Amino acid sequence: MSLTDLSPLEVAKAASISSRNLAVLPTQARDDALTAIHGALQEAKDTILAANAKDLELATKAAEDGELSQSVLKRLDLGRRGKWEDMLQGILDVRDLEDPDWYETVNKITLRTRLDDGLELERFTCPIGVLLIIFEARPEVIANIASLAIKSGNAAILKGGKETTLSFRAISTIISNALTNTLVPNASIQLVTARDLIASLLDLDKYIDLVIPRGSNELVRYIKNNTRIPVLGHADGLCSIYIHKDADPEMAVKILIDAKLGYPAACNAVETLLVDEAALSTTLPPVASALLMKGVSLRCDTESKRALFTVLPKNEALILQDATEEDYTTEFLAPILAIKTIPTPPNVSPSTSCSLAIAHINAHSSKHTDAILTSSPEIANQFQSGVDSACVFWNTSTRMADGMRFGFGTEVGISTNKIHARGPVGLEGLMIYKYRINGSGQVAGDYGEGGKRWRHERLPLDG
Amino acid sequence: MSLTDLSPLEVAKAASISSRNLAVLPTQARDDALTAIHGALQEAKDTILAANAKDLELATKAAEDGELSQSVLKRLDLGRRGKWEDMLQGILDVRDLEDPDWYETVNKITLRTRLDDGLELERFTCPIGVLLIIFEARPEVIANIASLAIKSGNAAILKGGKETTLSFRAISTIISNALTNTLVPNASIQLVTARDLIASLLDLDKYIDLVIPRGSNELVRYIKNNTRIPVLGHADGLCSIYIHKDADPEMAVKILIDAKLGYPAACNAVETLLVDEAALSTTLPPVASALLMKGVSLRCDTESKRALFTVLPKNEALILQDATEEDYTTEFLAPILAIKTIPTPPNVSPSTSCSLAIAHINAHSSKHTDAILTSSPEIANQFQSGVDSACVFWNTSTRMADGMRFGFGTEVGISTNKIHARGPVGLEGLMIYKYRINGSGQVAGDYGEGGKRWRHERLPLDG
Repeated sequence: MSLTDLSPLEVAKAASISSRNLAVLPTQARDDALTAIHGALQEAKDTILAANAKDLELATKAAEDGELSQSVLKRLDLGRRGKWEDMLQGILDVRDLEDPDWYETVNKITLRTRLDDGLELERFTCPIGVLLIIFEARPEVIANIASLAIKSGNAAILKGGKETTLSFRAISTIISNALTNTLVPNASIQLVTARDLIASLLDLDKYIDLVIPRGSNELVRYIKNNTRIPVLGHADGLCSIYIHKDADPEMAVKILIDAKLGYPAACNAVETLLVDEAALSTTLPPVASALLMKGVSLRCDTESKRALFTVLPKNEALILQDATEEDYTTEFLAPILAIKTIPTPPNVSPSTSCSLAIAHINAHSSKHTDAILTSSPEIANQFQSGVDSACVFWNTSTRMADGMRFGFGTEVGISTNKIHARGPVGLEGLMIYKYRINGSGQVAGDYGEGGKRWRHERLPLDG
Repeated sequence: MSLTDLSPLEVAKAASISSRNLAVLPTQARDDALTAIHGALQEAKDTILAANAKDLELATKAAEDGELSQSVLKRLDLGRRGKWEDMLQGILDVRDLEDPDWYETVNKITLRTRLDDGLELERFTCPIGVLLIIFEARPEVIANIASLAIKSGNAAILKGGKETTLSFRAISTIISNALTNTLVPNASIQLVTARDLIASLLDLDKYIDLVIPRGSNELVRYIKNNTRIPVLGHADGLCSIYIHKDADPEMAVKILIDAKLGYPAACNAVETLLVDEAALSTTLPPVASALLMKGVSLRCDTESKRALFTVLPKNEALILQDATEEDYTTEFLAPILAIKTIPTPPNVSPSTSCSLAIAHINAHSSKHTDAILTSSPEIANQFQSGVDSACVFWNTSTRMADGMRFGFGTEVGISTNKIHARGPVGLEGLMIYKYRINGSGQVAGDYGEGGKRWRHERLPLDG
């Protein structure tokens, strides 16, 4: 890793050249580099924590002046209990992701076809190339992302939030020195610190293959509007939970509390609650009570407010709010929940209500994560097939949408894209493939009308 | 299919709604729609060929006035021997792509993990959603693309080259009528004809998930510069062949003739020939002779020209041309070949020359298809690992890069992207996945510090 004074073009070119060398290194060499980074960071703990303390000092002042939120401030502190240890353990965890059935590894064959005698087609996995990763002011993330990039054989250009500049510089210097004694090229991981370099980097689609922004909606939108490079990530996390009429009330209470309050600022927190008309007086009241007791503001449509008003104690009923149309497209990132009633007309099948919930979600959600609470497997299946989101959950919390919880070890982010990788993106999302044909002099003109016939015979992958 | 007078926004919204219904149709319903389209086109042969004849008449006039190239004119004629039959057969071929090991099908499970007891994660395939496909003036392509879209469960908005407007209108009317009696929603396939609608459609990233342009470099670049929607395709097909010093001369002649002259205007035709210094007097002369005899212009660097000059007959040697740096980044799409010498310094290993060839290709090629001719498996492997292109071939022609030849049945195009799909893109490239979790009330807060532990146990895919 180098902390660089190079121009954006020089940075991108260096990354591109490094990526070619990195891509052909054996797994052991990439793993050795992670071991070296881990050891070097361990040794330099005091230096890094001292740099972090200075970041924290400046940020605390900015927070006192009202220029920085407390939540950003909290994330800066690498000295908080367990954070340093988790960061270091994360490097080893990524290094040890080895099961080729779980994780795409470089050179894994995923298709083999005998086109003709002595003419075999193979598709095999390889790294994407050069990643540009723009992330928030969380000092531990630089080590996570550097590990994932090296493990997957991709070169990475990193730009972290400015509030942690001193921590990033300290960490990147240590990583850079550690790489010097490994086979991983130093420019495989480069840190840029000036924010005004981003615009220039976004123009370098000749050298940069993928941009992964982690940050505010505004940042992600700015990036999508200003580059030809593919962008992987999400601008919004507008997640919904739909309570079908046969949902278990106790389960609904537990799941809503977790989904709304586990971490309200997270992209996988629930923002909209859809409630079957038939559940307004059964499942909704205990859910609403529990949320209100925990300080959640409920923004209700007319039907749900009317239903709750008649059953909730007065002190709770009086603090119910009215929802506007805008509330159903708002990512609150706060203890606020928009509630909408899904009609259950008499004499229609339960699948009709589910269809209406699906239609609402497909029109309003951000294709991140949506969940249904129901005791019917058929209705759950209808929901999971019909909802066009990366994650479609049944009887569990939207907060489950997370690479670590999915068993991916770690993640570079959560994608709401419709191509390449959706949902939590781990190592696999940083891989792609290429095709090789091993021939013995055959040419295209040998085949077709009047010529030889293709065999197109599928071969076992482990041959 | 509807030939539409709707606004771009209305077209995109209709496609989006149709895509939800199409995505949950059973395979049989989608296959039945293809059968219906096939039958209806068969019946309407005369009407369609009459419309095509009018297109041809107008185009012939434009060609006479010098406004249209002969090669475009040739492609317009749906009445040419075999073309109509191939178009119809193509629909049935796509319908019958059924082997789930070969082709991703909707609802194929690709990952199963037990996160905990009664908490299972599954990843399953699904269509991408809405495709915007912009293609050249080839009347048969509309039927191919409509088939691939329906088979893969994607809605598609189609815009074809203007020279075939009457043919497209006739075909789309027939397809539209045929769909009326099937479960596939009519707006799943919509044809737009006015070119000025493209700009508006490119702005509708809320409804359109992927743009697939097939056409000139300028068109592809324009699209990439003017949309936030991911673009799948290629602007350039700058393919190279590297003749290693131990290449078989006879094989080299055959492969170069095929790669350069099989179809010089194709994106998989070879444009640059890299020759090991050690092969300048052995393999290059017969290759150069054969190409010159077939009318190919050879643009040589100093070393290759000097070498050829001494061994070729005078009439051939005198027509050798000098290459400029620009020739090595030019997609000629014509019987022209740029030749460059790769130094083989004495006393270095053969892998050094191969490294230099790889470096040239990675710096100059368009990441489409590159090939090596060598008798050494080690050198071939070095080349195929090191060259960062979608297709890396050994001892065969670059012209092999083609969906039909790969056994994919057909293709929507060839991708030089680094993410999602590379090389010939068939059904698989039009699919993506989503994650479902089937739970029983578990929430994220149950796990982690002091709580339950994740099981993260991999399950068989066919359970």
